[in-house]
Amino acid sequence: MSLDGTYDQGNIFAKILRGEAPAAKVFEDDHVFAFMDVFPQAKGHTLVIPKRSEARNLLDEDPAVLAPLILGVQRVTRAVRAALNPDGIVVTQFNGAPAGQTIFHLHFHIIPRWEGVPLGRHAGGGMADPAELKVLAEQIAAKIS
Amino acid sequence: MSLDGTYDQGNIFAKILRGEAPAAKVFEDDHVFAFMDVFPQAKGHTLVIPKRSEARNLLDEDPAVLAPLILGVQRVTRAVRAALNPDGIVVTQFNGAPAGQTIFHLHFHIIPRWEGVPLGRHAGGGMADPAELKVLAEQIAAKIS
Repeated sequence: MSLDGTYDQGNIFAKILRGEAPAAKVFEDDHVFAFMDVFPQAKGHTLVIPKRSEARNLLDEDPAVLAPLILGVQRVTRAVRAALNPDGIVVTQFNGAPAGQTIFHLHFHIIPRWEGVPLGRHAGGGMADPAELKVLAEQIAAKIS
Repeated sequence: MSLDGTYDQGNIFAKILRGEAPAAKVFEDDHVFAFMDVFPQAKGHTLVIPKRSEARNLLDEDPAVLAPLILGVQRVTRAVRAALNPDGIVVTQFNGAPAGQTIFHLHFHIIPRWEGVPLGRHAGGGMADPAELKVLAEQIAAKIS
């Protein structure tokens, strides 16, 4: 999908927000929802999305949504660090399929990095074990402050 | 540098903000400064940094700085798209050297992507021609709205 287009209410993140699809939830407030990526590129790979949004990407988004969204990203990034003690953390956001985007609801990736551990390919290792993701989600959720 | 540490006033972005080092400026307001990356991973690779900040990364940053910062990132990302018409745009932010961070002043990368053009390695192609960066900066600046 190019950078042009319209929001698809059938995307998996919209389904998660409507409670129609499961997710290993990490955090939720009035503005954002955070959950584990089911195709993690590293242990603890977490996603943060705006709840009230029909934006495919950062270009489309109502600027008013961005402030609470980035605050949520910061809170969850801090919790990921506190829970998992990585050596580094990548925060990234893809706009358009040629940039790596696969789900067309605006989202930020929070990807822990450890020295000497290469980044996995998204979906390269297949879908993660939901039970393992639930444990990670609970570990990170316990560190939200 | 790990995620722990203190802010170094001698980092190159601090020098750029103080006017002690040159940069191909794209945009500036009270809160953010945007300029071309001198080691671009793609044509149009732009950086957005907070001006009044002594945060090495997203974890350290005062939450009050984040709202104007992400709004600046969105404005510049939209301008990059308008100026260069890429097929996609990666927005990314590294925390700690193991995550790819090399300058320890909080910054967001805006990296245009084109179908079939692989992402270059940061600094892999050497330093860009300052004259070319100035032309790109002017093209993007002209599309700031």
